[in-house]
Amino acid sequence: MRDGAREGIRVGVLGCGNVGGALVELLVRDGAGIEDRTGLRLELGRVAVRNTARERTVDLPEGCLTADAQGIVVDPDIDVVVEVIGGIEPARTLILDALKAGKPVVTANKELLANVGAELFQAAGSAGVDLLFEASVAGGIPLIRPLRESLAGERITRVLGIVNGTTNYILTRMSEEGASYQDALADAQGLGYAERDPTADVEGFDAGAKAAIIASVAFGARVVAGDVYREGISAITSADIAYAKRMGYVIKLLAIVERDQGGDVAVRVHPVMLPDTHPLASVRDSFNAVFIEGEAVGQLMLYGRGAGGMPTASAVLGDLLDAAHNLRSGGAGRSPVLHEVPVRRMEDLRCEYYLNIEVADRPGVLAAVAGVFGEHSVSIRSMEQEGLGQEARLVFITHLARERDMQATLHDLRRLDAVDRIGSLIRVVGGS
Amino acid sequence: MRDGAREGIRVGVLGCGNVGGALVELLVRDGAGIEDRTGLRLELGRVAVRNTARERTVDLPEGCLTADAQGIVVDPDIDVVVEVIGGIEPARTLILDALKAGKPVVTANKELLANVGAELFQAAGSAGVDLLFEASVAGGIPLIRPLRESLAGERITRVLGIVNGTTNYILTRMSEEGASYQDALADAQGLGYAERDPTADVEGFDAGAKAAIIASVAFGARVVAGDVYREGISAITSADIAYAKRMGYVIKLLAIVERDQGGDVAVRVHPVMLPDTHPLASVRDSFNAVFIEGEAVGQLMLYGRGAGGMPTASAVLGDLLDAAHNLRSGGAGRSPVLHEVPVRRMEDLRCEYYLNIEVADRPGVLAAVAGVFGEHSVSIRSMEQEGLGQEARLVFITHLARERDMQATLHDLRRLDAVDRIGSLIRVVGGS
Repeated sequence: MRDGAREGIRVGVLGCGNVGGALVELLVRDGAGIEDRTGLRLELGRVAVRNTARERTVDLPEGCLTADAQGIVVDPDIDVVVEVIGGIEPARTLILDALKAGKPVVTANKELLANVGAELFQAAGSAGVDLLFEASVAGGIPLIRPLRESLAGERITRVLGIVNGTTNYILTRMSEEGASYQDALADAQGLGYAERDPTADVEGFDAGAKAAIIASVAFGARVVAGDVYREGISAITSADIAYAKRMGYVIKLLAIVERDQGGDVAVRVHPVMLPDTHPLASVRDSFNAVFIEGEAVGQLMLYGRGAGGMPTASAVLGDLLDAAHNLRSGGAGRSPVLHEVPVRRMEDLRCEYYLNIEVADRPGVLAAVAGVFGEHSVSIRSMEQEGLGQEARLVFITHLARERDMQATLHDLRRLDAVDRIGSLIRVVGGS
Repeated sequence: MRDGAREGIRVGVLGCGNVGGALVELLVRDGAGIEDRTGLRLELGRVAVRNTARERTVDLPEGCLTADAQGIVVDPDIDVVVEVIGGIEPARTLILDALKAGKPVVTANKELLANVGAELFQAAGSAGVDLLFEASVAGGIPLIRPLRESLAGERITRVLGIVNGTTNYILTRMSEEGASYQDALADAQGLGYAERDPTADVEGFDAGAKAAIIASVAFGARVVAGDVYREGISAITSADIAYAKRMGYVIKLLAIVERDQGGDVAVRVHPVMLPDTHPLASVRDSFNAVFIEGEAVGQLMLYGRGAGGMPTASAVLGDLLDAAHNLRSGGAGRSPVLHEVPVRRMEDLRCEYYLNIEVADRPGVLAAVAGVFGEHSVSIRSMEQEGLGQEARLVFITHLARERDMQATLHDLRRLDAVDRIGSLIRVVGGS
């Protein structure tokens, strides 16, 4: 590394898509302003892209584009590497090589961190350089740094996150305008919030990866994406939304990370019924928010834009300045150290449940249905019946019950002749 | 300073009131847990109090109390100093002495920072040690660190803060239960949220000090408490609250820090009408929240407990761990450097206004009143008239107008015979 005492910090960027392009724009357009505000001069070194011939919307310094990403990570003229390619490979190898070469790395890559984060953190720790990843969860919202630093000493008990903007947009449209899931999804696709194949968002894979990263940071728990229990929102109906509203709830897709008294960690993503007075309930459209509960600090919520080129690039820029400051001052950030922690099985969850089922409308059916709940010790807190011609819809909210008992109840309900359709099972969260 | 490579970081605490007591409790009760989570061992050194004989609710290690605060800041066995005495002196001198002795300082003292912050930052910069103050604004909410670090490179344009829990509690009671200002204040006093003399809270002095600190951190602007335009909530009536609600607004006391295109900064505290869909509108009771607008990051909100011993001590603990990490790694944090920045005069503000006035209910009065607005080029967006027996109440919302024109309008309205009472003038904020 060059002696940088009077010079700027030279930044190598791997990838120039949505986030990479926005970052390059910030560095090129506002470099002087950034230096003015921070005393740190960031200079755009080289930018690796797949196709150097493609037209860019940003004016790049001449000769700055290259197809040789590996060349950037070993270039002695590059001080810090930003990885915004996404996916596991080649991102993983490039980051490991950059760390080995003594270069701090800033990444926005949730998939990578949620799968091989422990390996990367260990490599950063061994090399004694920063690996920063604020942009990997909740876009522009300062979340990782507050968790890692401001709340480093706090006994965090639970984190509830709206960390996927696409599903929050869809649920907001369903809730506020009575839109169907299909129509709301089509709108989200039209606006570019959802991909043509929306699976990663609507089935909770994206939120699951973020949940794993939150668990790593909040609890130092070695949790990977595959450890996360996951349900999406594609089965939520307008009827569920309407019932929720009438009972004083809103339906949100949450990433939930909890630690119990014994130290076990639970990590899951699924739709929940949230009281409409809960701070997360008023998080609308494609906004994200993360609600943190700690023993000393009480309740916190961090809210903002969870995606988009500029908000995400803003988070990358914050990390870049942190790495640059550490390079200048000779310090180093705190590398997360992950421990093996028991992950609680989903069947051991204790929760209240909302269940919506359609049954034949004839005498004795309610008794039979209620009997199944009773057999599995699931106690009913409230029930509503609505006529649907030949059928009736029964909507239950239970008292606290075990997931395994609730699943056994569902299993037996499916075997009742009179039950035509088992609708959504939604967990109730965020009460006292 | 002792060689601390194997030993803990010894913490000296100045003051053992609400926050100091909670911090001591965290260190004594959860020291092992903190070390487990962070790898940093914090040891309670000595605690300076005015009266060492007074009974404490916390079990303190024997011999740890002292009346000699000055002794702590020069004690070579103390590595970090926490100042939670409050007020200007002796806090200022003790902090300067600690910095001079090479000890990082963590303070929760908003009054001190809002008045002599520049002097303290300069002393910390010269000594090359940390001066950290997360707890000085918005209690347990991570705000200062996100502003100073995560958003260091961001062009922040505006910060809107609910930073006084007492007034937010009072306004929530008035809004949700129709309570009068006096009744809500009495309740706040009963709950310990408000002092017997509530002036510092209800007249906006507390929020004003915090606004000055936010301006320093967000804009590097050398702003002191005395630069802050300030109005409180004691003139807000149930009628104002009811009108606001009917028009889709809530009334909140906000600290507002803005920077315009030309670089001028405006810093003010006053009640505002906020659209009820704004994220700050749903911040209830004694909670605090800070809404940040930046060019790249868009909108952010940070929400949580703005006061109370434990949440504030949690913020102090986060700073302590940061200072401890820097001591261990040989790094140092970034000291704010404050610049002289033009502070915009209040009379140059452009804003929409709500105005509530009582007039004699007779022909020609409305024309006379409307004429005064027109003379000063203040254009009326909406007007409502309500009969009050012999009188009528006129409620106006203006289009964008200049503060100086609005004040001239008020001045001339006061001179109209038919005007019996000029009620609240409330600025409308947070629209598009």
